[in-house]
Amino acid sequence: MLGLIALGVAILMAVPCFVAWELDSPDKQAFLISEGVVLTFSFALIYANRRAERKLNVREVFILTAASWLTVCALGAMPFVLSHTVSTVTDAVFESVSAVTTTGATVLGQLDSLPKDILLWRSMMQWIGGLGIVAFGAAVLPFLRIGGMRLFRAESSDFSEKALPHTRNFLLRLLLVYLIISLACTIAFAVGGMSIFDAINHAMTTVSTGGFSTHDESIGFFNSAVIDTVAIFFMLVASIPFVLYLPLLAGRVRMLRSDSQVRSMLGAYLSVTVLLVIWLTVNNNTGFTAAFREAAFSVVSIGTTTGYVTADYAEWGHFGIVVMFFLTFVGGCTGSTAGGIKILRFKVAFIMLRETILRLLHPNAIFSRTIDGKPISDDTLASVMAFALAFACTVGATAILLAAAGNDFMTSFSAAATATANVGPGLGDIVGPTSNFAAISAASKWILCVAMLLGRLEIFTLLVLVTPHFWRN
Amino acid sequence: MLGLIALGVAILMAVPCFVAWELDSPDKQAFLISEGVVLTFSFALIYANRRAERKLNVREVFILTAASWLTVCALGAMPFVLSHTVSTVTDAVFESVSAVTTTGATVLGQLDSLPKDILLWRSMMQWIGGLGIVAFGAAVLPFLRIGGMRLFRAESSDFSEKALPHTRNFLLRLLLVYLIISLACTIAFAVGGMSIFDAINHAMTTVSTGGFSTHDESIGFFNSAVIDTVAIFFMLVASIPFVLYLPLLAGRVRMLRSDSQVRSMLGAYLSVTVLLVIWLTVNNNTGFTAAFREAAFSVVSIGTTTGYVTADYAEWGHFGIVVMFFLTFVGGCTGSTAGGIKILRFKVAFIMLRETILRLLHPNAIFSRTIDGKPISDDTLASVMAFALAFACTVGATAILLAAAGNDFMTSFSAAATATANVGPGLGDIVGPTSNFAAISAASKWILCVAMLLGRLEIFTLLVLVTPHFWRN
Repeated sequence: MLGLIALGVAILMAVPCFVAWELDSPDKQAFLISEGVVLTFSFALIYANRRAERKLNVREVFILTAASWLTVCALGAMPFVLSHTVSTVTDAVFESVSAVTTTGATVLGQLDSLPKDILLWRSMMQWIGGLGIVAFGAAVLPFLRIGGMRLFRAESSDFSEKALPHTRNFLLRLLLVYLIISLACTIAFAVGGMSIFDAINHAMTTVSTGGFSTHDESIGFFNSAVIDTVAIFFMLVASIPFVLYLPLLAGRVRMLRSDSQVRSMLGAYLSVTVLLVIWLTVNNNTGFTAAFREAAFSVVSIGTTTGYVTADYAEWGHFGIVVMFFLTFVGGCTGSTAGGIKILRFKVAFIMLRETILRLLHPNAIFSRTIDGKPISDDTLASVMAFALAFACTVGATAILLAAAGNDFMTSFSAAATATANVGPGLGDIVGPTSNFAAISAASKWILCVAMLLGRLEIFTLLVLVTPHFWRN
Repeated sequence: MLGLIALGVAILMAVPCFVAWELDSPDKQAFLISEGVVLTFSFALIYANRRAERKLNVREVFILTAASWLTVCALGAMPFVLSHTVSTVTDAVFESVSAVTTTGATVLGQLDSLPKDILLWRSMMQWIGGLGIVAFGAAVLPFLRIGGMRLFRAESSDFSEKALPHTRNFLLRLLLVYLIISLACTIAFAVGGMSIFDAINHAMTTVSTGGFSTHDESIGFFNSAVIDTVAIFFMLVASIPFVLYLPLLAGRVRMLRSDSQVRSMLGAYLSVTVLLVIWLTVNNNTGFTAAFREAAFSVVSIGTTTGYVTADYAEWGHFGIVVMFFLTFVGGCTGSTAGGIKILRFKVAFIMLRETILRLLHPNAIFSRTIDGKPISDDTLASVMAFALAFACTVGATAILLAAAGNDFMTSFSAAATATANVGPGLGDIVGPTSNFAAISAASKWILCVAMLLGRLEIFTLLVLVTPHFWRN
């Protein structure tokens, strides 16, 4: 299976190979060597295991998940090293992990002058990562019974139990949705004024909520209200459970409108935007239109964990900075490409909080816990709370390690948060929205790589691998 | 009942009244007027309700709890205003709330030159607050079924079911324990080299884990290893469930040793101390003895939410600062005077985390959740998680409001954390260990007052009062 995944990478890597060849880019050799290595690796694995059994048990699924993410990160880093785009293996791995986890933190400066093949490969890796996470969320997580995913799965099965008896069929339809959204986004960006190359790149990093750009100024480079609006729209589209688009393929629109997770997400983003617009117009003397455009774009970009930048929110004052810090954790809906803690978990948590308060007044009352009319089981409740705890511990441990590696309070905290939530930009002078991660130490970069992978794979998927119990019997 | 509580305050306020009278202090008038107001208030309430029913329902207990804390804070603030120790009502209320919640954040500078009556009153208010929280934890919380308190209650009932049939008897014995510890601490401090006045003051602020001092340099003023050791010992004593001392009154010591919460607390403090000692000796070129004394004192002071300062941990580098930030949240044991999230809740959380990970590997296994052999019910689990969530929301909301009031990132976060956990000193130039809270804005002080009260009363006790449901039928 790892061989098949590597084969997929090889097929996709052929695109920047071809681009490098066509443009006679100096990276031509780097890409050809990488392509050769990936193909060899892929065929070797497939050949060696050609007679292996196809059935996987729970343990093997955990190992496969971790191994496939690490393999794609390692293979994807090769062109960066071989082309001398970066000077160290650390930087190459950081860029690759940041791409595949759809985080979007970068160590590369002067993007505008980089060869197109390298830029395209960065964007493609985010697109691959986005596709991977949709498949992971739809097929692997319910199998492993992790997080609130079972709830999401139950929702999806409502209309799919008969239509989607086989996971493969289900995954192919999700792939189709992913392709259609990517194509629509490309066209929209191109119509909005981007070059075809920029449109393709930004479409891939938008639909994966990754946030890499082909310009140092990110989407701010275009300074276009139309492009900002297109980006906002497609970032939101990418943060909605992809399974909700399946009925659209059959021409039905009811599911999308009636999903309370989607409504809560839009409501949350809108509330924060309104709050920031009021703050900006009152305190920073920004005009209403400018404030609305800046705030709406930044909130959706950070909220959906994309991480595009059009405004330097570091200059919004302390209130803006702290709000953006908390927004880092929110994330999109489960089953989308967005990272973070995710809206569904917040909904479950607030249902529990409400119940706890009411129980104080009515100790013997029986409370029904439902989302969209579906009951939340005790197991779901426990797993949501365990995830929140694990998320907090991951951010905390990462922040402590970053501080030990010499980073200041704000850099440590915001980098830990932005990495674990797979957002991209942090706060402060070093990792803030207008700078990049080139300046932090090598040790810090490795720490952040671990945090990005933990965050992307719902923490427990990796955490379980380091327990002695996993390897025992 | 509020009248009786005010009567208690009046009796205790007679002490600084007497001191002011004896010393012919300029605050004599201020204390006499305050005493008069408190007595009038007390008698008026008692007289007006002399025929009222004595039985309270759940709603009334919530109101009484909030009302008594607010009343003590308001009455206690009077001497500060009337004596012109502070120039604004805001400062007086902040100092009073900080004292009664045993937080220990202060707006007063030049403590060494303040009249003794004022200093004594500050310390006494912390002592009253400490006593209040022990009573609250032992009698009110189990009645209201809040937090992990039911578990603590179950523990205590093990040996008390027959011995303590009546809450009043139980409370009187806890009061006795509180008095004995206070007395022992006073003697120890005096033997260690403090003046009697300093010994009394510091004993009262140690046993309540409050942390007010009579000197600007806090306990660091004495610069004595003996006094540091005495303080460490009694801060730890004050952070252990007071109910565990009851068997000591009867000459038995088994309970104390076998309590896993106490062991976990000591283990946690020791681990952090060792970590910091290694860091300080390796990175800051501090000698081992000095590093150990500094680290052990600071860890116990912040961990137990006392907040005494002997070393400026702001100079320990980024790692030390971030570690101290997280330590702010830890707290002591349930049923002690310590604040914070508290060890028992961390134990429950980690039991759940472990179970979640094991469940991934064995989906159908049945897990027994126990602490000290006693089962943790689903209800306890839910209330612990709800508390953690509520705590995080309180710190988050406080930080956002503080940022909106103009405080920087680090000040907002550390002040929010230190107030909600009732610790005392925060981080950064403004609210750090070597400065005080005088410099922050009036709005910030009021925000912090709310956070301190929420933290001290286990959040839900106050939160329930602002729900429409509470006031409905």
